[in-house]
Amino acid sequence: MLGPVTEPAPVISFLSDFGTADEFVAACKAVMLRIAPGTTLLDITHEIPAHDVRAGALALARVAQYLPPGVLLGVVDPGVGTDRRAIAVELETGFAVGPDNGLLSPAVAMLGGARRAFVLDHPDLRLDAAGATFDGRDLFAPAAGHLASGTAIDELGTEVDPLSLHPTILGLSQREGDLVKGEVLWIDRFGNVQVNIDPDELGELGLQEGSNLTVAFRDEVRLARWVRAYAHARPSELVAIVDSYGLLSICLDRRSAAASLRLTPGDAISLAKPEA
Amino acid sequence: MLGPVTEPAPVISFLSDFGTADEFVAACKAVMLRIAPGTTLLDITHEIPAHDVRAGALALARVAQYLPPGVLLGVVDPGVGTDRRAIAVELETGFAVGPDNGLLSPAVAMLGGARRAFVLDHPDLRLDAAGATFDGRDLFAPAAGHLASGTAIDELGTEVDPLSLHPTILGLSQREGDLVKGEVLWIDRFGNVQVNIDPDELGELGLQEGSNLTVAFRDEVRLARWVRAYAHARPSELVAIVDSYGLLSICLDRRSAAASLRLTPGDAISLAKPEA
Amino acid sequence: MLGPVTEPAPVISFLSDFGTADEFVAACKAVMLRIAPGTTLLDITHEIPAHDVRAGALALARVAQYLPPGVLLGVVDPGVGTDRRAIAVELETGFAVGPDNGLLSPAVAMLGGARRAFVLDHPDLRLDAAGATFDGRDLFAPAAGHLASGTAIDELGTEVDPLSLHPTILGLSQREGDLVKGEVLWIDRFGNVQVNIDPDELGELGLQEGSNLTVAFRDEVRLARWVRAYAHARPSELVAIVDSYGLLSICLDRRSAAASLRLTPGDAISLAKPEA
Repeated sequence: MLGPVTEPAPVISFLSDFGTADEFVAACKAVMLRIAPGTTLLDITHEIPAHDVRAGALALARVAQYLPPGVLLGVVDPGVGTDRRAIAVELETGFAVGPDNGLLSPAVAMLGGARRAFVLDHPDLRLDAAGATFDGRDLFAPAAGHLASGTAIDELGTEVDPLSLHPTILGLSQREGDLVKGEVLWIDRFGNVQVNIDPDELGELGLQEGSNLTVAFRDEVRLARWVRAYAHARPSELVAIVDSYGLLSICLDRRSAAASLRLTPGDAISLAKPEA
Repeated sequence: MLGPVTEPAPVISFLSDFGTADEFVAACKAVMLRIAPGTTLLDITHEIPAHDVRAGALALARVAQYLPPGVLLGVVDPGVGTDRRAIAVELETGFAVGPDNGLLSPAVAMLGGARRAFVLDHPDLRLDAAGATFDGRDLFAPAAGHLASGTAIDELGTEVDPLSLHPTILGLSQREGDLVKGEVLWIDRFGNVQVNIDPDELGELGLQEGSNLTVAFRDEVRLARWVRAYAHARPSELVAIVDSYGLLSICLDRRSAAASLRLTPGDAISLAKPEA
Repeated sequence: MLGPVTEPAPVISFLSDFGTADEFVAACKAVMLRIAPGTTLLDITHEIPAHDVRAGALALARVAQYLPPGVLLGVVDPGVGTDRRAIAVELETGFAVGPDNGLLSPAVAMLGGARRAFVLDHPDLRLDAAGATFDGRDLFAPAAGHLASGTAIDELGTEVDPLSLHPTILGLSQREGDLVKGEVLWIDRFGNVQVNIDPDELGELGLQEGSNLTVAFRDEVRLARWVRAYAHARPSELVAIVDSYGLLSICLDRRSAAASLRLTPGDAISLAKPEA
């Protein structure tokens, strides 16, 4: 992603679970701007639930293909202070930096995979600070700043095999007879329920846009209609939509389907053709 | 607003109802930075209540006169995926981009009105994406990015009559005998209750700074004192203040008047001179 | 902090209690970008609790040493509209701007102290606006913008004695026999409870990393273990950690110690060596 360091300056895209109420995010950005003045900082989000590596990995994967050239910095790091590795990865067109805990893996895969990987162990890289480790500010931000300012990735530490990077465990959907079984990946701000089911899998069940389908979760079964746009749902009608990421979402028009159905990420959900 | 595209780069000012917990805002910004690298992105707010076009329109109107030269991008779009139009408007000094649902109208009026208007229907403008429409990312962000990078507005689509643009329906205050009847426009973070009443209307009732006045809502009537500054309110004293937008606000010192009086946007409110 | 105004442009670091739901922050930024186009704006946080000068002062002090060269703008201003002074302070390497209510004092001290101080009373500095004062937008933002664009600080108003600036009243920890008495300074997003106690004070009690200690608050006493990293806490084990600011924090692994112990900023807390 990192183009030639001329005009315009590269972009560092930054995701974390730091929230915005404290000054954590600002401290990281301040460190980056000192090392790489003029860099454009793009906040992906900092409201990933605390320590939720899976939610962070999914958000990074959703946005990765749109990011401008530069450095992708992700910090959701429940293992800070343990022996989990801190890494920088070289991509076809840029770099990704963060803890080696699976957070970066889906985004790295979407961006063409890791060409090379390095553990951030160069002794000069880490900022001095008292007490417990705040690696976002003291290690990852310096690494992202140096990459944005043109430092070669192999100056940041020891090369490791990209195949040794921690994978992300994401559930796959499964066909079982006339059912497709999946799970809730994400609830967005509007309460839309994204599931890890591809519309092609529904096609194999004989379903298509305009069809009705059953949505089963816990001990409940609801009927939904497969429509093209949110606004095509009638008031209070449950609908299924292929969302703008190409995955299936369960939605209500202008209301939260997640709140109405009491669904949260990780919940099991099955879709099927209604009995005739 | 768009000056010559030299140094400094133009500013895109961005308001939406996307929230900041998801990566929606970042996806839009990423698209804009790819099309117009180096552009300064100014977040107006992304916490407009979901689908609340009126609240978004009021926030845009409050901030419009302060915005730097460039492009105003507003996306509160409950009709996405329907036949509501997507538009770009040429202003005296810049551009506004968003859905044609009244969101932009008050700000456009405050900035001198629309010189020309275009429907965003050029086939090359929209980003390819799977499934349901995410027009913020796939249509409005590209349009804003192209305008910021110097593309002529008439390359974005078909010209339409500015008079055909969707107006915003905002209530007007009314004088009825010794009363001025209005409604709550906005509750700010501090719980101040802004009403659509101009201090001149109170002047016509014989009220002025220092006067007492009655504030009637639901079946309650409270006494308030008209003061110049928030800090001039005594503890627990209800006060009326001409706020920094020139409209009347009902306030408590360092406490939320809205919470105390249980008022929300759209509530009817009447002001009058107390009986002698 | 302000280097020569060439490339890259200076940074304005901005903290307030405005929240991000309204357009207050955007209005201030818009004013700054008009006066100083191309300036990098770094949000420290805008979610300081409304009117909580002490919380704002502590956040500024925590981040001050990391900020890039430029202008520090802080606005938590319950006294807006009264005769509290609006000030700009010259630092060794930059400037700080805000109300003279103690908000800036700890950060100014951490950055080497005030060289010169000025009251923002130049008649051309304030933006015209209707009604009550919004000094963030109409006075402090213009001052910060002018300093960022190279205006000399003595053009902003009348010089005053830096010793006349409002100090911040922060509690100090106290040794009482075998106890160290302190108070809760801050609860971070992760629920870690930072107290105003230096680890050296615990050393004087004969405690060190690896020791057990007692944590007393209200009428409760808990046992905690002093560990190096958050991740070294066992499930549900209360631990004490020297945090990345060098102060002591009371923590639970991946859970909120503040919620579990029901502690909030300002609460009294005592630490001691457990009886043998």
